[in-house]
Amino acid sequence: MFNCGKIAIVGGGSWATAIAKIVVRHTHHIGWYMRRDDRIDDFKRLGHNPAYLMSVHFNVDEIYFSSDINKIVENYDTLVFVTPSPYLKSHLKKLKTRLHDKFVVTAIKGLVSEDNLLCSEFFHQVYDVPYANIACIGGPSHAEEVALERLSYLTVGCADREKAQAFTDILSSDFIKTKTSQDVVGIEYSSVLKNVYAIAAGICSGLKYGDNFQAVLMANAVQEMSRFLSAVHPLERNVYDSVYLGDLLVTGYSNFSRNRTFGTMIGKGYSVKSAQIEMEMIAEGYFGTKCMKETNRHLHVNMPILDAVYNILYEKISPQVEIKLLTDSFR
Amino acid sequence: MFNCGKIAIVGGGSWATAIAKIVVRHTHHIGWYMRRDDRIDDFKRLGHNPAYLMSVHFNVDEIYFSSDINKIVENYDTLVFVTPSPYLKSHLKKLKTRLHDKFVVTAIKGLVSEDNLLCSEFFHQVYDVPYANIACIGGPSHAEEVALERLSYLTVGCADREKAQAFTDILSSDFIKTKTSQDVVGIEYSSVLKNVYAIAAGICSGLKYGDNFQAVLMANAVQEMSRFLSAVHPLERNVYDSVYLGDLLVTGYSNFSRNRTFGTMIGKGYSVKSAQIEMEMIAEGYFGTKCMKETNRHLHVNMPILDAVYNILYEKISPQVEIKLLTDSFR
Repeated sequence: MFNCGKIAIVGGGSWATAIAKIVVRHTHHIGWYMRRDDRIDDFKRLGHNPAYLMSVHFNVDEIYFSSDINKIVENYDTLVFVTPSPYLKSHLKKLKTRLHDKFVVTAIKGLVSEDNLLCSEFFHQVYDVPYANIACIGGPSHAEEVALERLSYLTVGCADREKAQAFTDILSSDFIKTKTSQDVVGIEYSSVLKNVYAIAAGICSGLKYGDNFQAVLMANAVQEMSRFLSAVHPLERNVYDSVYLGDLLVTGYSNFSRNRTFGTMIGKGYSVKSAQIEMEMIAEGYFGTKCMKETNRHLHVNMPILDAVYNILYEKISPQVEIKLLTDSFR
Repeated sequence: MFNCGKIAIVGGGSWATAIAKIVVRHTHHIGWYMRRDDRIDDFKRLGHNPAYLMSVHFNVDEIYFSSDINKIVENYDTLVFVTPSPYLKSHLKKLKTRLHDKFVVTAIKGLVSEDNLLCSEFFHQVYDVPYANIACIGGPSHAEEVALERLSYLTVGCADREKAQAFTDILSSDFIKTKTSQDVVGIEYSSVLKNVYAIAAGICSGLKYGDNFQAVLMANAVQEMSRFLSAVHPLERNVYDSVYLGDLLVTGYSNFSRNRTFGTMIGKGYSVKSAQIEMEMIAEGYFGTKCMKETNRHLHVNMPILDAVYNILYEKISPQVEIKLLTDSFR
């Protein structure tokens, strides 16, 4: 039976913090890479992440913190990457240790910028990690709810079933139900696409489309997702499954989704720049939209929702005009 | 080309009122059966339904009201039934005119009580209406949003494509997009089941399950719906379509859904009786749950959500216990 060995978390945001909490409950020791030393100092002093999920308390004696990614990679066997996708490359630039014999788990919901690679592809192509050693985490999981120990369902995807199973054993608890999958590519792409669709949902809400239309949008979104996944990675998969449809719904219907909020501001007439300034952050789906649009240039899948969001965010076409066209394409 | 002829509405609730508005915009005359003369008098005086969708104004010169169902059936060619399902039989008991040569359209979201018949089956078996003359209306459509002219998508199901098309032509407008289907049985059953699932969503919400779980519940609900429809009426259908999945989502995610509200009260510990008294009405899914449970006794489809809601509402099993069992059955 595969053993995950010593596990470290790479990244300091809310989802990283939730996963750290789930893992350390089980292992009683984790490594944790965070970029900023001041954050680490505050974390140690306060007993919780100073910036995210502040209600979640940790026993800091169970955590080895470091802002040096090499120390983390050298000393840990399983590395759980949970940085925002646009920053993954810059974190790894400092890396001098090889990754190829590590078990790499990605919980990143985005493509690697510029290259438009899935994180699994990126670790494989750039860091020589065999696919059998790469897993991903998916499923409908607001970090805030996981932190509140509200029942959530996570799926671990890995080409190697035994490794997927080993990592689900680390995640499972009375409030986390898990299952395994071999569809790493499908899970990763669907976790990017759902952010695009959450932006679309927000835009429509900002334009004052109602709940009836939102339901039609989501029903069309899961079909668009299904078409794309079948084209990019043909495989027998059930898109109704919670890791695909469930993740789409929790993001598309949530008022807490940053992507949906970003979309709502765009729908209300904010420019991309002013929405980003107002939110003090960049919604990950903003980058995801561009990456997916570029990926689909080669695949030519019929993706009217993706196209509409792309045209609104990158081609400065009016949301009114784009969404009106989109409504005509729906059935 | 089939012509719908003179169209009448049977029923006086909010969905009846919304459909009346859609139709009369197109035809400039409708018949309208309402049970209560005092309501008809108030409607004529006020220019709007005195009890539902009061913001929707009608030109009452375009409406022939009657509380005598025989006058309506005699004088109209297309009859749109929009009563709550438990009252359909009592309305029709007074009928002395035959229905068999009428075009019967049902927008009722429920089974006929006691018999557990779909409305289409009921009109066919009891009133000798040929299936080619029976249509249904489905799709995600809060009456309140239709009244506000917010873009909505409706599907007209009918074995006779030409008749389905003729009725969609009556419904279509700048805020109603339509399509046709031949899956009358599937549309009718899914409109009953979605109320059961909305009750389930409410129960879970009342028990403080969060959005992550709600997404898993909805993803499992559409799979359960799909299994049932395949068993009861095998047919090539796309359950992602807005008439199935979309209708489920708009009901399951809406805080305005009476079925969801009823479920929330049950989840919070109200008895069925006290929830009904508090709401001053009976949620249609309460009856739907019993009808579906009885229908499935012969079909033996795996329907854990339906079973859980039935056990809670009719077997008085604690919501905590039932939903805990349900969560274990989910993936």
